[in-house]
Amino acid sequence: MPYVNIKITNENVSSEKKAAIIVGVTKLLEEIMQKNPETTVVVIDEVSTDNWGIGGEAVTVRRIRKNI
Amino acid sequence: MPYVNIKITNENVSSEKKAAIIVGVTKLLEEIMQKNPETTVVVIDEVSTDNWGIGGEAVTVRRIRKNI
Amino acid sequence: MPYVNIKITNENVSSEKKAAIIVGVTKLLEEIMQKNPETTVVVIDEVSTDNWGIGGEAVTVRRIRKNI
Amino acid sequence: MPYVNIKITNENVSSEKKAAIIVGVTKLLEEIMQKNPETTVVVIDEVSTDNWGIGGEAVTVRRIRKNI
Amino acid sequence: MPYVNIKITNENVSSEKKAAIIVGVTKLLEEIMQKNPETTVVVIDEVSTDNWGIGGEAVTVRRIRKNI
Amino acid sequence: MPYVNIKITNENVSSEKKAAIIVGVTKLLEEIMQKNPETTVVVIDEVSTDNWGIGGEAVTVRRIRKNI
Repeated sequence: MPYVNIKITNENVSSEKKAAIIVGVTKLLEEIMQKNPETTVVVIDEVSTDNWGIGGEAVTVRRIRKNI
Repeated sequence: MPYVNIKITNENVSSEKKAAIIVGVTKLLEEIMQKNPETTVVVIDEVSTDNWGIGGEAVTVRRIRKNI
Repeated sequence: MPYVNIKITNENVSSEKKAAIIVGVTKLLEEIMQKNPETTVVVIDEVSTDNWGIGGEAVTVRRIRKNI
Repeated sequence: MPYVNIKITNENVSSEKKAAIIVGVTKLLEEIMQKNPETTVVVIDEVSTDNWGIGGEAVTVRRIRKNI
Repeated sequence: MPYVNIKITNENVSSEKKAAIIVGVTKLLEEIMQKNPETTVVVIDEVSTDNWGIGGEAVTVRRIRKNI
Repeated sequence: MPYVNIKITNENVSSEKKAAIIVGVTKLLEEIMQKNPETTVVVIDEVSTDNWGIGGEAVTVRRIRKNI
């Protein structure tokens, strides 16, 4: 019955990548902690880079400043 | 002062249903735990079925596979 | 598959009250949103009053100040 | 390495305000708890007023009722 | 900069298992989503079985009822 | 009505520091976003260093390895 919440910025995220993360995390919890995949919930939140701060600045600003 | 966060998939959700959940949960906390409704916060997050995994697969895929 | 997280201060909380909240919230989601109880997860976090702030002060302080 | 999640209703929120909150919260954690800004994550979730309940009603309804 | 929060019941959890989950989840996010391990945060919350409800009952009760 | 959740490792945390964070964050939200302090909730979660991973390792291990 694990509940896994993954918050990432909404950059370069595809359905395929999300599906692969869901498979991988569920498998890890099954193999390492014997959790039942059928009741393992994985929720992915994609956050706007305006709404994600690190180092005291929004990622939007950081990307521009660091030209990345 | 309870804070309640309810995460559901964004399927068949209406304003009326959300309002009924907010009323019901607030009332439960008042009756069972004597919490003040005026400071009881209920936040509902509607999650895309691509972003919600169970049984190692995204709900989008699961719905198609199970034809539900 | 709803995931419900309820954060409350760790005041006057008993197993019976927690059980009643779990039953009540699960029933609400079943009746109002046709959610399957068997995959409805309810997690209750009990938070120390030192760690819960409202009105700019910790509840511990607030209780003493308001003698409640 | 603090992780700060700020949930607010999606009313009157601008990039500038979000940037100011990110700066301010990061600075507070640095000054008060000696946390490293470079690994301090601040995530702001803007919630629809339909999805935010207080006093047993959605903020959308509350705003109309209280004409605010 | 992903933030991963894993909530599990506090049953059969060891430091080794938690370390293995942290390694595995960080690696998944690096390989699948090219996320930098050095800013990937994984937080594991261990929840009392009194405080975790599924199927409308606390896991404590469920374990006894199902003798598992 | 903002809800702020701050997760930090349980290192060097005192009631005074938590109180100062609660005051500071509440004031920031009041000044920058005109939020009412009386309904601003700040919850601080202190997480064991075994349960906090960064760079693919638990902070407990990281502290020992880096002798900090």
